[in-house]
Amino acid sequence: MSPPAFVAQDPDFERRVRDSFGRQQAMVLLGAQMERVAPGEVEILLPYSPRIGQQHGFVHGGMIGAVLDTACGFASLTLMPADAGVLTVEYKVNFLAPGIGERFRMIGRVRKAGRTITLAEADAFSQRDGREKLVATMTATMMTITGRDDVRS
Amino acid sequence: MSPPAFVAQDPDFERRVRDSFGRQQAMVLLGAQMERVAPGEVEILLPYSPRIGQQHGFVHGGMIGAVLDTACGFASLTLMPADAGVLTVEYKVNFLAPGIGERFRMIGRVRKAGRTITLAEADAFSQRDGREKLVATMTATMMTITGRDDVRS
Amino acid sequence: MSPPAFVAQDPDFERRVRDSFGRQQAMVLLGAQMERVAPGEVEILLPYSPRIGQQHGFVHGGMIGAVLDTACGFASLTLMPADAGVLTVEYKVNFLAPGIGERFRMIGRVRKAGRTITLAEADAFSQRDGREKLVATMTATMMTITGRDDVRS
Amino acid sequence: MSPPAFVAQDPDFERRVRDSFGRQQAMVLLGAQMERVAPGEVEILLPYSPRIGQQHGFVHGGMIGAVLDTACGFASLTLMPADAGVLTVEYKVNFLAPGIGERFRMIGRVRKAGRTITLAEADAFSQRDGREKLVATMTATMMTITGRDDVRS
Repeated sequence: MSPPAFVAQDPDFERRVRDSFGRQQAMVLLGAQMERVAPGEVEILLPYSPRIGQQHGFVHGGMIGAVLDTACGFASLTLMPADAGVLTVEYKVNFLAPGIGERFRMIGRVRKAGRTITLAEADAFSQRDGREKLVATMTATMMTITGRDDVRS
Repeated sequence: MSPPAFVAQDPDFERRVRDSFGRQQAMVLLGAQMERVAPGEVEILLPYSPRIGQQHGFVHGGMIGAVLDTACGFASLTLMPADAGVLTVEYKVNFLAPGIGERFRMIGRVRKAGRTITLAEADAFSQRDGREKLVATMTATMMTITGRDDVRS
Repeated sequence: MSPPAFVAQDPDFERRVRDSFGRQQAMVLLGAQMERVAPGEVEILLPYSPRIGQQHGFVHGGMIGAVLDTACGFASLTLMPADAGVLTVEYKVNFLAPGIGERFRMIGRVRKAGRTITLAEADAFSQRDGREKLVATMTATMMTITGRDDVRS
Repeated sequence: MSPPAFVAQDPDFERRVRDSFGRQQAMVLLGAQMERVAPGEVEILLPYSPRIGQQHGFVHGGMIGAVLDTACGFASLTLMPADAGVLTVEYKVNFLAPGIGERFRMIGRVRKAGRTITLAEADAFSQRDGREKLVATMTATMMTITGRDDVRS
């Protein structure tokens, strides 16, 4: 099940995604960084910080969920028209291991891009002592929004 | 479908939940406040701040999801034994309206508490000009963890 | 959280829903019966039969999930325009107890009806010796489809 | 993200899975057939029949969901101890295309097998005129049950 090769409609998709990510104050607050932007796929890094921890000292699962949501949204946006915005309809996240690590790598990928609805998936891997471990995985329904000035990339 | 009346096993459940919430640095970072703690139910407030926004200026859905996860987790913890901790197995959140408002009220409720698995639900309401609006809803699977020193309330 | 009162756009919604349910061969195969149809809400009964069992003799969770999906879809259809059809975008179901009982009562309710997207919820209760027990609960995203001859109620 | 190679604890896992599948009356009713059983992975075929259709003549999404649940459950069971049974905690299914085709191929795979909780994923592909198309995808939480005579493979 290798991911299908996607072609972006908007040749300027990478700049558009990076600009939009930069305006997400929530991701700045968490310390997340957009690493890689490709058609239908993005990679985000989240360094560990006690500031995003839960009561046991692990990274809060909800923070991991928020970055996975962001990864799904921007992976979807890479394939949308230049004047479109993206809204999250829903996501489910399953947690497989505690959020322990030096940093976390999130990969978001489009599974199927439709005119209105896009299905995206994302995985979160912890990095610790040079090893990666799957800690959470998400599936998300994204919606293409056009013609609304308040919802644009 | 009024919520069932639950009885807490641990008479000291409220203090335990408030202490544990206070140690969640991620909730401090977001500015979330634990309002009400009852057997099987908690209420959390999240004041609006541009720091938790997404690219359109609304509150980031993932931040709302993170607080809903917290509401589900602590609602579940109210019913667990004194020496138990809670871990999130999975959650799904559906978004119904943009995260626009002066503040957000999250209510988490246990739907069924089992020995190992608890199902919890949570709703997020925006508050704006004295009116409330449902913006997101979650169902979550929580797990009771006992006998692990690293996972306690 | 009492369900909001909904008003149907199509005064003939009940006949439309019952006709459409009657054409669902899968529901005939399972033995499901549409009991009650109201704006934003339907009730479906599923009598126990070993034909819909799994390996332990309980009713197969997937069969319960299929009827819950149907309940969510038709609850949503009650509020849609007369010329619209409904398609399921996604659903999640959580199982709380084994599918043991003489019959099962499913209630599907609209939580929020939007122009394109409707969020519905459904619960499945087992009935046994005159008592009801919650066995499964679903949240589902439904889509209003118009202008397609192959997708109508 | 090629699936990890799994090793079955029970050398007799294939016979155990095929026997258990054969006792699922619901799968007999739908006409589903277990094709392939490997450690951490199973493949099930569902031939098209109008008997499992919905109101538009497509295969009912809930029937596809039920077979995907079965695929996730048996993929998980391949890795469980010989005396264990499997129960579904929850699943989410996203629908990507209508259930149109001559038959449907479901692949269930374990993503992570834990002592108590296993995460499995499954895809449904329609087959039509020699071509395959992804129509639905599921993630599911499965639970290993031991020591209960009523829940065994």
